Amino acid sequence: MVDREIITSKENRKVRDMRKLHKKKYRSRTGRFLAEGEHLVEEAVKHSQTIHSVILHEDYDYAHLDLKGIGLLFVSGEVMRSLSPLETPPGIIALLSYVPPESSGQRVLLLDNIQDPGNLGTLIRTADAFGFDRVVLSPDTADPFSEKVLRSAQGSTFHVRIDIREAAPAAKEFAGTVLATALNDAESLEDIGTPAGPLMLILGNEGSGVGSDVLAAADKRVRIGMSGESESLNVGIAGGILMHHFQA
Amino acid sequence: MVDREIITSKENRKVRDMRKLHKKKYRSRTGRFLAEGEHLVEEAVKHSQTIHSVILHEDYDYAHLDLKGIGLLFVSGEVMRSLSPLETPPGIIALLSYVPPESSGQRVLLLDNIQDPGNLGTLIRTADAFGFDRVVLSPDTADPFSEKVLRSAQGSTFHVRIDIREAAPAAKEFAGTVLATALNDAESLEDIGTPAGPLMLILGNEGSGVGSDVLAAADKRVRIGMSGESESLNVGIAGGILMHHFQA
Repeated sequence: MVDREIITSKENRKVRDMRKLHKKKYRSRTGRFLAEGEHLVEEAVKHSQTIHSVILHEDYDYAHLDLKGIGLLFVSGEVMRSLSPLETPPGIIALLSYVPPESSGQRVLLLDNIQDPGNLGTLIRTADAFGFDRVVLSPDTADPFSEKVLRSAQGSTFHVRIDIREAAPAAKEFAGTVLATALNDAESLEDIGTPAGPLMLILGNEGSGVGSDVLAAADKRVRIGMSGESESLNVGIAGGILMHHFQA
Repeated sequence: MVDREIITSKENRKVRDMRKLHKKKYRSRTGRFLAEGEHLVEEAVKHSQTIHSVILHEDYDYAHLDLKGIGLLFVSGEVMRSLSPLETPPGIIALLSYVPPESSGQRVLLLDNIQDPGNLGTLIRTADAFGFDRVVLSPDTADPFSEKVLRSAQGSTFHVRIDIREAAPAAKEFAGTVLATALNDAESLEDIGTPAGPLMLILGNEGSGVGSDVLAAADKRVRIGMSGESESLNVGIAGGILMHHFQA
């Protein structure tokens, strides 16, 4: 086995640069982000993301992983802990740039100002499950490349095409039926059949819903009938029910 | 206005006792828990929970709240911060004991070893939305009275009847149709009509699903058809789709 170098200083320049990627500002500036844990690293490889390097704890057993052609960087436990926001770092992190996959455009999810990282990640994962292979995010939505969003998306980030665009023009320009969720003046989901052709589904902010300018660009408003007592659904749950209903 | 006493010491006995309630052990031992924020406090009042006292930041404006007959405890900012796990404490906390509401028993959700507090809270909220007015939790499920679960349940904790029971006997003894989610040997949701009479829906652990002993007690296994690429759904999303489908 070739001698390998192990980075043991948290102040190493590469390590410092990677640590900065926990902030959105640096992710935007560099177009790079970190994906942690074996599952995410494998998904990134499988779905042809640009992998600048894979950072491994010096004791990490990676023999079973297909990392050929990828630069490996070995680090001490202390350095790994400095790179990971998790209490028990899994010991493997990929340094990536996003390569959006092709999308059929038949099923598009448009998210207008979703704030909770867990909701966003779950919505990306659910879009992937139901064939919504393009997810458009308004610029004020949470960052899809933050650690929490990547974790709850469980690799679906690399299967669906994620674009960041102003929501109202994206809805207006969509060549197909545009459905937005709304609590008022909306048709019940149970009464809406699945329209022929491409479909865009719009979900909005956890507190205030879909913005009025975006609503105005929709062909129809839809709400989910609820027989029980609570007044609203979590946006991830609403998205799950709607995408299941309208899946391609 | 009557002079009121303000607790300014974090070491005050009442304050120390309340702080212990952030641990499950003390919640179980005392049958008491804390619900933070105006919305949860109002829901607890509205749904006839036992309210031992309401703790208020000394500057909190509570004139608009209906707290008559409830003991109020005023505390300094420092004491409030010591009681709250939140970065910006909302300034109002109720000290409660749970009073389970009546349940029709027509729609029951049984959760077998759900671990994530956000998933559990969202499932309780969604059960409430779709008329699943009883939620049975296996003893190894997350604690429904922890701060995170209460927060994501958004008050539905007080609208649905929550019981903690071993899952397999609860499923066996249920007088109605018992449906469990499973990925294998399961009928597709799209092919299952809504059975007449009472219905119990079982969801399982985030990683391993419904336990085999619990599955064995179910009348039918159900899975959600997915047209897309990902292999599984978040358990909260699966629960949302199923409860929407089977709502009373």
